[in-house]
Amino acid sequence: MNIHLPDSIRDGEHLYAVRVYYEDTDAGGVVYHANYLRFAERARTEALRDLGVAHAEMAVQHGLMFMVRRIKVDYLGPARLDESLVVATRVAAIRGAVVELRQDVRNETRLLVGLDIQLACVRVTDQRPARVPVRWTEALMALSCREMAPSGAQ
Amino acid sequence: MNIHLPDSIRDGEHLYAVRVYYEDTDAGGVVYHANYLRFAERARTEALRDLGVAHAEMAVQHGLMFMVRRIKVDYLGPARLDESLVVATRVAAIRGAVVELRQDVRNETRLLVGLDIQLACVRVTDQRPARVPVRWTEALMALSCREMAPSGAQ
Amino acid sequence: MNIHLPDSIRDGEHLYAVRVYYEDTDAGGVVYHANYLRFAERARTEALRDLGVAHAEMAVQHGLMFMVRRIKVDYLGPARLDESLVVATRVAAIRGAVVELRQDVRNETRLLVGLDIQLACVRVTDQRPARVPVRWTEALMALSCREMAPSGAQ
Amino acid sequence: MNIHLPDSIRDGEHLYAVRVYYEDTDAGGVVYHANYLRFAERARTEALRDLGVAHAEMAVQHGLMFMVRRIKVDYLGPARLDESLVVATRVAAIRGAVVELRQDVRNETRLLVGLDIQLACVRVTDQRPARVPVRWTEALMALSCREMAPSGAQ
Repeated sequence: MNIHLPDSIRDGEHLYAVRVYYEDTDAGGVVYHANYLRFAERARTEALRDLGVAHAEMAVQHGLMFMVRRIKVDYLGPARLDESLVVATRVAAIRGAVVELRQDVRNETRLLVGLDIQLACVRVTDQRPARVPVRWTEALMALSCREMAPSGAQ
Repeated sequence: MNIHLPDSIRDGEHLYAVRVYYEDTDAGGVVYHANYLRFAERARTEALRDLGVAHAEMAVQHGLMFMVRRIKVDYLGPARLDESLVVATRVAAIRGAVVELRQDVRNETRLLVGLDIQLACVRVTDQRPARVPVRWTEALMALSCREMAPSGAQ
Repeated sequence: MNIHLPDSIRDGEHLYAVRVYYEDTDAGGVVYHANYLRFAERARTEALRDLGVAHAEMAVQHGLMFMVRRIKVDYLGPARLDESLVVATRVAAIRGAVVELRQDVRNETRLLVGLDIQLACVRVTDQRPARVPVRWTEALMALSCREMAPSGAQ
Repeated sequence: MNIHLPDSIRDGEHLYAVRVYYEDTDAGGVVYHANYLRFAERARTEALRDLGVAHAEMAVQHGLMFMVRRIKVDYLGPARLDESLVVATRVAAIRGAVVELRQDVRNETRLLVGLDIQLACVRVTDQRPARVPVRWTEALMALSCREMAPSGAQ
């Protein structure tokens, strides 16, 4: 089923490259803490696109969209100007209208920032929760991390 | 006619205070150059609100909005973290569907950034140019700089 | 001891007003989720300033700074263009080198976003943790929420 | 001399791809006007890197950096969420401490935003103007637009 996975997906992770520019940094000389949320959202968007289930399509075909409902961010180390980062995205759980992702921002040597993201699938018209369409659930399974395996996707 | 001008307007200038936070700076230790455009837009929004002609009202009453059509920015000196800046906004010209503004960003001692802004008044529905409503033109006159006076609104 | 508290502090909360501008919104018509972290950081900066213990001073006098170590954000409702928001900041706990804050972003009718912020006090030179200076701890106590009182600083 | 030009350079233009994400848009449904300056700066950074004369290296080897001194931006059409844009960068002139660039932001069908950028080469220590190093001038020549050729835009 996962035969045609794109190059950006390896070992159940979607990998997205980010370069740090001046716009991302602050006077502390490092990436401004809120900007990791921008990096993470770019990575989520590209992950969906690479999986063949782009968010624009979900809106058009189903009248649905993902909204960020909860974010937990752990800052473990700073990133600096010109650094090459990678955002690794995995699915932690899918249940009903909720998708939980784990996103790790790494430089070449270590984990810098870890994000736990809870997305709600909602109707575009009134923002009410709606079950994630089957095609999206199936596609997202390609990013299921190992820990999900035993007990199923909850 | 200018009897009830708010405190934020003095000598034909609208004054808007901006504090520099980490989010505004970059790894060079100064305000990131694109962020002065954000400061300037906040100031324009508050200038219209203080003049009693808020942009939201223009949309609701006339189906019109201002779009930025051209910007020229001169960077004369840097602003740093925690600095208190002022954005001074004046009207340079109003003709037909076009409003030209001059915005100066100053700290306590000098001019840091000068912006010449050309706004187009357009219809919300199709972005086609439309004459600036009389009430807006009249209100904006409170910010007319001296140079406008003799030769008319150009 | 809290005799000279500034107007921005009421009932153990520091209140900071934020207006929503175009720069803060996204194509969904609401405030972009990462931008609440910017609002929250502005509010923290002003809270320290209003308490008489500005972060710039901490750097100069003690060679110390606060770094964001962990953030948890709950998105409960959207904020829209032109809305007036308030960021309410309280101290949840202070222990050793760690300060935990609770920040609520509200509009006129409800709570929109809740943030739990964990700050680490670190040395500017090498980012190693360092005890929060007594003067800062004492000042921050003005923002101590009721729950802290009985058991002390947890 | 231009034998080993990278793929990103064609016909004297450096081409840099930008995807529009939610972070780039505003409540008007289009890219927020200030964000084109961020796109343009990313493109300039990559242009220098692709030419083998990265800005970090200029700082380390020569103690010099480029500062934005003047920007003129013409907004001709809007870009929307998910659009693929290209920033084309050319050198318009190099003289003494000043480099003038022309940057065009295009989507698949048309020119959306044109930027004329004036950079000053300055010393990192005191921001005083300094001649652009020969190696940088020579490398930048690969981006010289045709119009420069006849009269020598210097």
